[in-house]
Amino acid sequence: MLVNVRGRTAHYRTVTFDAAENSVLLIEQRLLPHEFKIVQTADFRETARAITDMVVRGAGAIGATAAYGFAQGARAFRGRDLQKFQAHVETVYQTLKAARPTAVDPVNAMDQVRAALASGETVEEQQALALAAAEEFALEDVEHCEEIGRHGAKLIRHGMNVLTHCNAGWLAFVDVGSATAPIYAAQAQGKKFHVFCDETRPRSQGATLTAWELAQQGISHQIIADNAAGHLMQRGKIDMVIVGSDRTLGRTGEVANKIGTYTKAVLAHRHKIPFYVAIPLSTIDWNLKSGFDIPIEERHESEVLGAWGVAQKHPSKSSGTKSAQRSYVRVANPTSSALNPGFDVTPAELITGIITPAGIFKPSELWSKRDKLGFAR
Amino acid sequence: MLVNVRGRTAHYRTVTFDAAENSVLLIEQRLLPHEFKIVQTADFRETARAITDMVVRGAGAIGATAAYGFAQGARAFRGRDLQKFQAHVETVYQTLKAARPTAVDPVNAMDQVRAALASGETVEEQQALALAAAEEFALEDVEHCEEIGRHGAKLIRHGMNVLTHCNAGWLAFVDVGSATAPIYAAQAQGKKFHVFCDETRPRSQGATLTAWELAQQGISHQIIADNAAGHLMQRGKIDMVIVGSDRTLGRTGEVANKIGTYTKAVLAHRHKIPFYVAIPLSTIDWNLKSGFDIPIEERHESEVLGAWGVAQKHPSKSSGTKSAQRSYVRVANPTSSALNPGFDVTPAELITGIITPAGIFKPSELWSKRDKLGFAR
Repeated sequence: MLVNVRGRTAHYRTVTFDAAENSVLLIEQRLLPHEFKIVQTADFRETARAITDMVVRGAGAIGATAAYGFAQGARAFRGRDLQKFQAHVETVYQTLKAARPTAVDPVNAMDQVRAALASGETVEEQQALALAAAEEFALEDVEHCEEIGRHGAKLIRHGMNVLTHCNAGWLAFVDVGSATAPIYAAQAQGKKFHVFCDETRPRSQGATLTAWELAQQGISHQIIADNAAGHLMQRGKIDMVIVGSDRTLGRTGEVANKIGTYTKAVLAHRHKIPFYVAIPLSTIDWNLKSGFDIPIEERHESEVLGAWGVAQKHPSKSSGTKSAQRSYVRVANPTSSALNPGFDVTPAELITGIITPAGIFKPSELWSKRDKLGFAR
Repeated sequence: MLVNVRGRTAHYRTVTFDAAENSVLLIEQRLLPHEFKIVQTADFRETARAITDMVVRGAGAIGATAAYGFAQGARAFRGRDLQKFQAHVETVYQTLKAARPTAVDPVNAMDQVRAALASGETVEEQQALALAAAEEFALEDVEHCEEIGRHGAKLIRHGMNVLTHCNAGWLAFVDVGSATAPIYAAQAQGKKFHVFCDETRPRSQGATLTAWELAQQGISHQIIADNAAGHLMQRGKIDMVIVGSDRTLGRTGEVANKIGTYTKAVLAHRHKIPFYVAIPLSTIDWNLKSGFDIPIEERHESEVLGAWGVAQKHPSKSSGTKSAQRSYVRVANPTSSALNPGFDVTPAELITGIITPAGIFKPSELWSKRDKLGFAR
């Protein structure tokens, strides 16, 4: 999507590959929203480290980074010995797999690249196939997001106020994003609308990443405290809600997403405001039979007890600060502790529709449409 | 209530008066929760400044501060000339009234003191009456809170998990508090229970003031992100909700309170969790006919765009920092703005009961019980 860097607007993707340099290019997300910077990894180990250290985050984005990192590692091999090459490739695979051990996307992405590579007969051929497969994986990620946008944009009408929660934006994918895809597509169609971004405590991805994305794209938006959405709905100021999902149960239509999503769904339901979840097909879990079986990660209490930001002398003057140096402040009482569940589960009955690359479905329809939605029997 | 100062626990009130020094003593709330300090105002002008500068906040607390400040000003007069004394007293009244122009509590409190003072025949008598009336006002504030506690404690059972929002604690009153009164009373009865404090963005009064209060009293508690309450309710981890109120409509039972209160009420209703509002009678508005007529203050966006706290190098180590120097960090995207409504309105249908010093009432009962509840015809 578009990024304004020192007054000039250019198109960037979250993850790209420089074939000449054999290097993965990543937007350094830990500096956002205070500084925009592209980092370049010199080898697959550095790429793995970038995943571990959260230079890059988000399901689609780390999948593509692992795919590119895998090709990068394969292409770094010198020589023609296929057996040695295969041993080397295995090291690359394991290194990138270990970079974020609980995530499934890097593994799925690399499996796709590894399968493509196997059809080559020489080292050189396999190296070329690896890169082509990684490029294809990244391209598909973009295309799927664009399909989500194409379907979802129909829901956004001129003059609407749209609420978002957390960041399922293009920074979490190779480009475009899931929950943001309909927003960007509607903008491209010339529709004017306003977006309220939940700040999304405790990690504030709405105030930082989503707001940054929307600002770069020139989309009218305001950040609100998570507490404010109910009031705005009550006063008729929100017309629809779009969120992303970390895991959607194909059998029940339940949606696991960032903590606070469930609350927004309950509020939207009370006010008869449409509540949509935008997802790539890869996040559908066809196995689990109940949302209560989804493990809810408990994160460190320090996220709730304080906040990360850039020190600013005068809170009321919009910063314009040049420094991206973020620091942590302890907000809470020093002798208190916190409970910090990272995700919650929204039941199907509260969800108006699930926007996928294959169309918009009622949550209860997912199972009956499973063939269309990539269910592997 | 109890405060632990350098290892020793002692009883403090938010506002007290030192007759020998003719001075108002206040807990310096701007330093909490990071430092506990009592400040002493030298004259009524300093007392007015303490109200303006938010050294003291909360309806009951600023009422009592104004009452004491009024007596302080009256007692500072030297001489026997009643006419000059009355002119002086008028200056004191106007100075304290101007300290927080939109608040009604200081005015109501001073009117009570002024009425008492009028019955004295000499300057000296009137000065003595002023102090006695201020002391009575403060005492009544405490007694009303204790009555709220007496009624509300019956609702808290052994082993319960109680959710609170914002701070309607003893720091907002002379002592005890409104929403916290049932909690303290239940503790005094030997009941064991756990309190979840909503952090209450954007000003974080739950994470700072309520958590500090509960920690001082030794009550088991955890801070949660405002986003987490829905999830905890869904998983059966919250048994009741108690909040305060800035204004309760006597005719409709609607409750205006800190932003986010409405959201918690909607969630509690869905999960059939009792939702109580604890209020002193002075917050009942007998005039307004609809919650939509309550003006909702829009506060400065900087509250949403960042956070105040004490800089801490290692977020994961509980600070133990000795410094109370708070600073502001900008969390949000530097080029985004925010919308910051300070309050919301909860309809009567979502409220299980209103806990008052005169007993617990259904919101719909307030009007029919208006004689008992201090309605002035």
